[in-house]
Amino acid sequence: MAVRDRATTYFKALQDEIAGVLNRMDGTPFRQDIWTRPGGGGGDTRTFSGGRLLEKGAVNFSAVSGQYQEEFARKLPLGDGLDFYATGISIILHPLNPFVPSFHANLRYLQRGDTGWFGGGADLTPYYPFEADVVHFHRTLYDALLPFGEHRYREFKAECDRYFYLPHRKVMRGVGGILFDHQTGDPESVFAMVRACGDALLEAYVPIAERCMSLPYGERHKAFQEIRRGRYVEFNLLYDRGTAYGLRTDGRVESILISLPERVRWVYDYQPEPGSPEAELWDYLQPRDWLAVGS
Amino acid sequence: MAVRDRATTYFKALQDEIAGVLNRMDGTPFRQDIWTRPGGGGGDTRTFSGGRLLEKGAVNFSAVSGQYQEEFARKLPLGDGLDFYATGISIILHPLNPFVPSFHANLRYLQRGDTGWFGGGADLTPYYPFEADVVHFHRTLYDALLPFGEHRYREFKAECDRYFYLPHRKVMRGVGGILFDHQTGDPESVFAMVRACGDALLEAYVPIAERCMSLPYGERHKAFQEIRRGRYVEFNLLYDRGTAYGLRTDGRVESILISLPERVRWVYDYQPEPGSPEAELWDYLQPRDWLAVGS
Repeated sequence: MAVRDRATTYFKALQDEIAGVLNRMDGTPFRQDIWTRPGGGGGDTRTFSGGRLLEKGAVNFSAVSGQYQEEFARKLPLGDGLDFYATGISIILHPLNPFVPSFHANLRYLQRGDTGWFGGGADLTPYYPFEADVVHFHRTLYDALLPFGEHRYREFKAECDRYFYLPHRKVMRGVGGILFDHQTGDPESVFAMVRACGDALLEAYVPIAERCMSLPYGERHKAFQEIRRGRYVEFNLLYDRGTAYGLRTDGRVESILISLPERVRWVYDYQPEPGSPEAELWDYLQPRDWLAVGS
Repeated sequence: MAVRDRATTYFKALQDEIAGVLNRMDGTPFRQDIWTRPGGGGGDTRTFSGGRLLEKGAVNFSAVSGQYQEEFARKLPLGDGLDFYATGISIILHPLNPFVPSFHANLRYLQRGDTGWFGGGADLTPYYPFEADVVHFHRTLYDALLPFGEHRYREFKAECDRYFYLPHRKVMRGVGGILFDHQTGDPESVFAMVRACGDALLEAYVPIAERCMSLPYGERHKAFQEIRRGRYVEFNLLYDRGTAYGLRTDGRVESILISLPERVRWVYDYQPEPGSPEAELWDYLQPRDWLAVGS
């Protein structure tokens, strides 16, 4: 079977697995929207809301095909012609408890003409970070990528640090993770690498969520979480290429903007009190070698 | 005295007047931040928060000068050289009560080399609109512009309808108002027109706010207001030229993003119940000839 079809099958199965685990943790069933795209293909959007774990979350799968607009296709760096096929999974989790980080991941396969490539990534956005959790998250991704060369994690981690950056705030969106695109090498080994990333997602995030989701919190923590979620919205609407691409290509708006957290707050000139738990977060919002921490 | 200096004086005085009236209505003093810009000039940011009227609001004045970056200046449609001077007032009001519309206005004078021009606008974003209020708002702006030609309101209203549009949602941000830029005609008469707009702002908005700010509301109304404020954020971060310009030119971030409402909510696939008061709003979010309504 062609890589394209196996990738589609893998992403679909991964959606089932991850949505299942989250369902169990959340205690509230997800809502499922099966949709079709007028131009070809469709998707399966599974959204969480109001459960034990997730204030809002989504585990989306899609596999769409069709014809690019000529003007649009001219700007694409890879492939020939107008025919395309795109499949992938995207996960966005905004927990209720401010001690549980938000989580985002995306894995995808694109094909234009006869050229196919993979892209993806996973990153973490804590509010009240625990250093050991951030190290665990990065180390899990490092371990998953290690069979494909030690340089992989380093490269993808650096790309993630560059990408999830808010220039107007001069901080990263969170504590990073990995990010890669345009992986056109030997399809079998690239696909194996993507599967290794996909298989590591639950291990990277679930232990953190399980440990923190019952920690007691108050108004103060919730307010800080909501203010920080404003920065998440700023990144996604001002800078995120996926959001801009989706809205420009007339994608399904609700599946694109599901990435935005449910409750968000913008307070004029918010500054954390020096020395407070809130102020500690800022040390985490600059690129750091997380594998070197505590080792 | 040159128009540039008189415009500066006028905007400053208008800030005092409007901030004073809002202060009285709000019952809570505004916070004042006087700031200077490293490149030249500065501003006076007055913010409201947590009062009777305003969940969050701002009445900002600035007068800055300096040198444009060469690359940036090349793209400007008017004037010569790199020297610039810019002064203006901007007002953003996000009331607490969901029956009171949000209000935005901006008036400004820019000069590059020897060429100066005015720009500005005012627009209204209701949540539970009252038709008579929308008519009053538009009629007040029409009356203010009438001495400068009947075409003014029509042109500026059409420009406002075009500008405050969210293509991905296929609705306007609110019910519009007026918008104009690059007014390079006879400086005295353009300045007179800008003053007429500025002098009409309180009359356009205050009666609406006074009538509605004590209407009783509940959780349902607040939730709808917060969801609709999400669309306001989407517009400002995805499409607003002023926000993009400010962030790209390294403007004062807090003064730019003060336009974002305090409490915002994104709910997956929100749809108002057909026939509900919430659903009525959608009829207001398409361009309409408000002067013809009820006359």
